[in-house]
Amino acid sequence: MKLATLRDGSRDGALILATRDGTRFTSATDIARDLQSALDDWERVAPQLQARADALERGEIGGAPLDVARLAPPLPRAYEWIDGSAYLNHVRLVRKARNAEPPATLETDPLVYQGGSGALLGPRDAFVLPNPAWGLDFEAEVGVILGDTPLGTTASTAAPYVRLVVLLNDWTHRGLIPPELEKGFGFFQSKPATAFAPFAVTPDELGDAWKDGRVHLRMNVWWNGQQVGRAHAGPEMHFGFHELVQHLCKTRAYTAGTIVGSGTISNVDRAAGYSCIAEQRMIETIDQGKPVTRWLQAGDEVAIEIYGDDGVSVFGRIEAKVTAP
Amino acid sequence: MKLATLRDGSRDGALILATRDGTRFTSATDIARDLQSALDDWERVAPQLQARADALERGEIGGAPLDVARLAPPLPRAYEWIDGSAYLNHVRLVRKARNAEPPATLETDPLVYQGGSGALLGPRDAFVLPNPAWGLDFEAEVGVILGDTPLGTTASTAAPYVRLVVLLNDWTHRGLIPPELEKGFGFFQSKPATAFAPFAVTPDELGDAWKDGRVHLRMNVWWNGQQVGRAHAGPEMHFGFHELVQHLCKTRAYTAGTIVGSGTISNVDRAAGYSCIAEQRMIETIDQGKPVTRWLQAGDEVAIEIYGDDGVSVFGRIEAKVTAP
Repeated sequence: MKLATLRDGSRDGALILATRDGTRFTSATDIARDLQSALDDWERVAPQLQARADALERGEIGGAPLDVARLAPPLPRAYEWIDGSAYLNHVRLVRKARNAEPPATLETDPLVYQGGSGALLGPRDAFVLPNPAWGLDFEAEVGVILGDTPLGTTASTAAPYVRLVVLLNDWTHRGLIPPELEKGFGFFQSKPATAFAPFAVTPDELGDAWKDGRVHLRMNVWWNGQQVGRAHAGPEMHFGFHELVQHLCKTRAYTAGTIVGSGTISNVDRAAGYSCIAEQRMIETIDQGKPVTRWLQAGDEVAIEIYGDDGVSVFGRIEAKVTAP
Repeated sequence: MKLATLRDGSRDGALILATRDGTRFTSATDIARDLQSALDDWERVAPQLQARADALERGEIGGAPLDVARLAPPLPRAYEWIDGSAYLNHVRLVRKARNAEPPATLETDPLVYQGGSGALLGPRDAFVLPNPAWGLDFEAEVGVILGDTPLGTTASTAAPYVRLVVLLNDWTHRGLIPPELEKGFGFFQSKPATAFAPFAVTPDELGDAWKDGRVHLRMNVWWNGQQVGRAHAGPEMHFGFHELVQHLCKTRAYTAGTIVGSGTISNVDRAAGYSCIAEQRMIETIDQGKPVTRWLQAGDEVAIEIYGDDGVSVFGRIEAKVTAP
């Protein structure tokens, strides 16, 4: 099923269920008033939500036309947002871009950072850019939303804790990263609010494309209407979500609603294009001695979408304008 | 007023108000069912909570004896937990301990990292230590809980967003830090769940000791009953909470309930003792060539408390045992 959050003036919005094609919806607030509440009580409410989603899909419930512009992110405020960097081609390229070596443990020890989760962006929310000199970039990623996940969970026991799969844009101020990492404490100011596609979906919505804790579909990215990325999110995800969960659970437990990201989708094959500008600039530097492609600026539009093998837009479309303050 | 959270089987617990001496309490769930709900609607509910707290203090409401062992952390799950490192003596000592230079911008650019906020520990919760070889340490800190705080908030406009002041223990696996920071993404596994003292208090509870966004009181720390720390939390906090808020708000906005920590309280004067073991071990290394004091192990007990100028325990006492799994 496909869950989404309708803006209704409240902090957490109203839970809705959408049809597979994302065009119609029905309210689910009588089952759980918002997505966090549903995740808090998932075993009990998921079957009820599924039954209603099925009825909507079969037309037994009429539903109403869905206006994506009215959607909040699936979780407008989340308890944790942890982002991995599981595509090693991305790590190698962006490190090269800032003249840094990839860590020695690149292939054995996942890279993750804790991001800000209290104020997230919806699928049509503009990104207000305070300063274009900060080098704004997009990072197209997939993610999962966990249920309560205990300390010590391993990759082999992680699968049942993955409740939902999401699509996201990890907006990044690329120019703020080097001085920030220089200080040794990781990203902070360089990572503004993250944006989410309309639908958080149960793994079964992906069919065979959800396998080994990975999304085996292509990530499509458009910049001002031109497609710049079509990287495959599956095989080159060196650490799958189950391995990321094992890494996270070494010293902590997680509460329901914790969001875990894959990091920027990236393929070695250059024909796949790019899911963040930083990679393209690095390739230009390698080939031509200097970057040619600019960072984002006010007026730019970024769109991100993933299609299932049946052509359906799995998570709906992120379509965001960059605006001046 | 002093707010606290009673464990009642729910995820967020039940909001209570305590007397100034922390011995008696009354329920406030009819005003706001939990602390997050109160923070979500603070302008409306704070006066009602204050009136009830006043009535409790004056004895017009009888209240019931407070058993601190029944308390959750003030926010059992928070939307963000951001920890600074604002006492430069601490930064200088721990960097020296791991043979790292303090950042060049130490005195002008605050150090902060994003911590895990979805599963926090209460004032009497044991710390279950999975592996003593990880070098468990305590870090005694003060913190603030923010209301909704907009992007671009500056130090001079930050004061009204500070809703509550808290006392906390930022448990740290010291041995996991060097390999983690080596990877460049900051702390993650080295920072397990953080523990909080019983009471989140409004700044006025500190009287004149709340000044310039700093807590001008001493941080008392006991290890197995022996007092090891009495550092002053005020003058040596190089960046006060208002300056930390300015740093945070450069690229993001924050939702009500965001917790911001000071970093380990630390004084240049060695007579003040230590608020984390790492500092003591570094001092031993400087003086005697090698560290003598061990890390924490199962069976150890850590207690942390701050007294107001009138002798009252402002936040109540953290008293935690380290246990084997």
